[in-house]
Amino acid sequence: MSSYLVKSLSSLSPYIPGEQPKEGEDYIKLNTNESPFPPIQEAVKRAEEKVRPFNLYCDPTLFDLKKAIASSFSLPQECVSVGNGSDELLLFALLCYTNYNIPLITPDITYGYYSVVASLYDREVIQIPLKDDFSIDVSDYEGKKGTIFIANPNAPTGIFLEREKIEELLNQDKDRIVLIDEAYVDFASNSVLPLINMYPNLIVTQTFSKSRSLAGLRVGMAFAQKHLIEDIERVRSSSNPYNINSFSSSLAIEVLKEEETTKKRIEVIKKNREYITQEYKKLGFDVLPSSANFIFVKSEKIDGYDYYRKLKENGVLIRHFTNSRISSWCRVTVSKIEDMKILVEKTKEIIK
Amino acid sequence: MSSYLVKSLSSLSPYIPGEQPKEGEDYIKLNTNESPFPPIQEAVKRAEEKVRPFNLYCDPTLFDLKKAIASSFSLPQECVSVGNGSDELLLFALLCYTNYNIPLITPDITYGYYSVVASLYDREVIQIPLKDDFSIDVSDYEGKKGTIFIANPNAPTGIFLEREKIEELLNQDKDRIVLIDEAYVDFASNSVLPLINMYPNLIVTQTFSKSRSLAGLRVGMAFAQKHLIEDIERVRSSSNPYNINSFSSSLAIEVLKEEETTKKRIEVIKKNREYITQEYKKLGFDVLPSSANFIFVKSEKIDGYDYYRKLKENGVLIRHFTNSRISSWCRVTVSKIEDMKILVEKTKEIIK
Repeated sequence: MSSYLVKSLSSLSPYIPGEQPKEGEDYIKLNTNESPFPPIQEAVKRAEEKVRPFNLYCDPTLFDLKKAIASSFSLPQECVSVGNGSDELLLFALLCYTNYNIPLITPDITYGYYSVVASLYDREVIQIPLKDDFSIDVSDYEGKKGTIFIANPNAPTGIFLEREKIEELLNQDKDRIVLIDEAYVDFASNSVLPLINMYPNLIVTQTFSKSRSLAGLRVGMAFAQKHLIEDIERVRSSSNPYNINSFSSSLAIEVLKEEETTKKRIEVIKKNREYITQEYKKLGFDVLPSSANFIFVKSEKIDGYDYYRKLKENGVLIRHFTNSRISSWCRVTVSKIEDMKILVEKTKEIIK
Repeated sequence: MSSYLVKSLSSLSPYIPGEQPKEGEDYIKLNTNESPFPPIQEAVKRAEEKVRPFNLYCDPTLFDLKKAIASSFSLPQECVSVGNGSDELLLFALLCYTNYNIPLITPDITYGYYSVVASLYDREVIQIPLKDDFSIDVSDYEGKKGTIFIANPNAPTGIFLEREKIEELLNQDKDRIVLIDEAYVDFASNSVLPLINMYPNLIVTQTFSKSRSLAGLRVGMAFAQKHLIEDIERVRSSSNPYNINSFSSSLAIEVLKEEETTKKRIEVIKKNREYITQEYKKLGFDVLPSSANFIFVKSEKIDGYDYYRKLKENGVLIRHFTNSRISSWCRVTVSKIEDMKILVEKTKEIIK
């Protein structure tokens, strides 16, 4: 840190992403909720053939990508914006709908990026504690002024908030923006996307990073009524109008044409989630009910950090968070069945 | 714009990028300073083979990319940061080194993004007028408190500021950050990069978008002493730790191995710049002395906007800016010699 850095940033604690093994480090990687499936090869091939030449700038309006998304989700194009990962869209929404006077409201246990990006931009964050069972009670948000970000399913718990509850939240205060971050929704029962027609205060974000196997290419989507999308686009074009590069944009368009394959892959992950949940329970672990491609587990027999560390020594990477409320827990990505089986074996050895 | 948007953003005028023709619109494109050369095919092929699978997140530390850049520029890796285009690095520097109290200082005529991004983040911009010949007089910056952004060569003028002048600027006030945006420096005589060793207050940004033919892939670089790079990395990791995607990163690394080809391409552009400059002069145009891959031209015979419009009707896109001080001028990208010859012919017809 230099002496030139503005004061407000000197106390910033950056977001800590999950470890990414270096080349040659051969881990079973269950720590960042990636898809175990490679990107769909037919889509990659078509994208490589069709992509705009790299010496030209990308289309700053991202017209074709928005059109493809709108068509795939049966929405008008004016209800769609896109970001360099959905993280960037969360940032744009933060800039649009919070300031020194309008805080960000989130659960106390949720995706860590929300509070990091809020502190980067000097926004107050009001954290509403989850219930003891890690569920969200929407009545806790009644009367709270600010802009709400809720991950659904929540991370790292995996717990899903039903649509009626989100409607309750939206109805509590129509002057308050509610952003539902559906990064993991493809592994849950349903999305609140159909609600955007009814609620002028709802923004829904989704991503190509999880079910569509494009984490490394950084493409996220935001959905809302036209007036909110105009706000987000205004910030997008002022912040970085070339935010999604030509290749990512081209590949995202092609991947959307392969939704059948994507759906089959989701079913495999859901099946493996059921498998690993049962296996952990057999071993005496607590497992939260997950609607995501990860599960949140804890055992009386071993501390969360120790379990993480011992699995790492055994070649398996999972995620542990230091926040005291969840430090006895670990988050484990649901992956290929072979890897789930190895995880079970290693876990048995560790806790025996 | 919605009624939910925070007040400070309601008056924002977004950055207006140059037009990008839609598929099927066949223009000679001289409006966004892209390279006319395709990305180097050997590099693309190697990048496609070596790239990290897209289902995995990119490396958030961007270790390999920074290492390749550091090695190519003979600098320690701790002096390098990278962005989703150099635009993103300008934004990070703005967040690090300006606030309500520390304005941004720029020339009045320069890259339009500076003032757009400053207004997005509610920063005051102090604009120092260029001299009548569009040159920068560094003595105008003496005693001015704030953080300075200077494009060198400047855009859209193409005029180069000599290294001694930049040293003068750096020495005026060692407590003041000076960022030199060298997006176009490869077409000029030299970079101020070697000065970062001597000046703790200097940041230099460069890009893969121009001479290296990767505009569509969005990779920029920042160079400075370690303490400043730490600041920028702090913001990068809080803002979007996966800011450069796997494919862009992989291709940038491979393109750096082809510096001989890049140099040859730069020589072609410089030669064509000399050609088109002379041709414009023969036609009675004023042409500013350019050290970039574009030239800034004006004719007594035709208004800037009319010249732009008539060339567009004739299938050639150039760039016109509405700012009154430069509205009689147009910016023209230096491209392939065939396209330069067509430009000359069309111009002759228009002004005859």
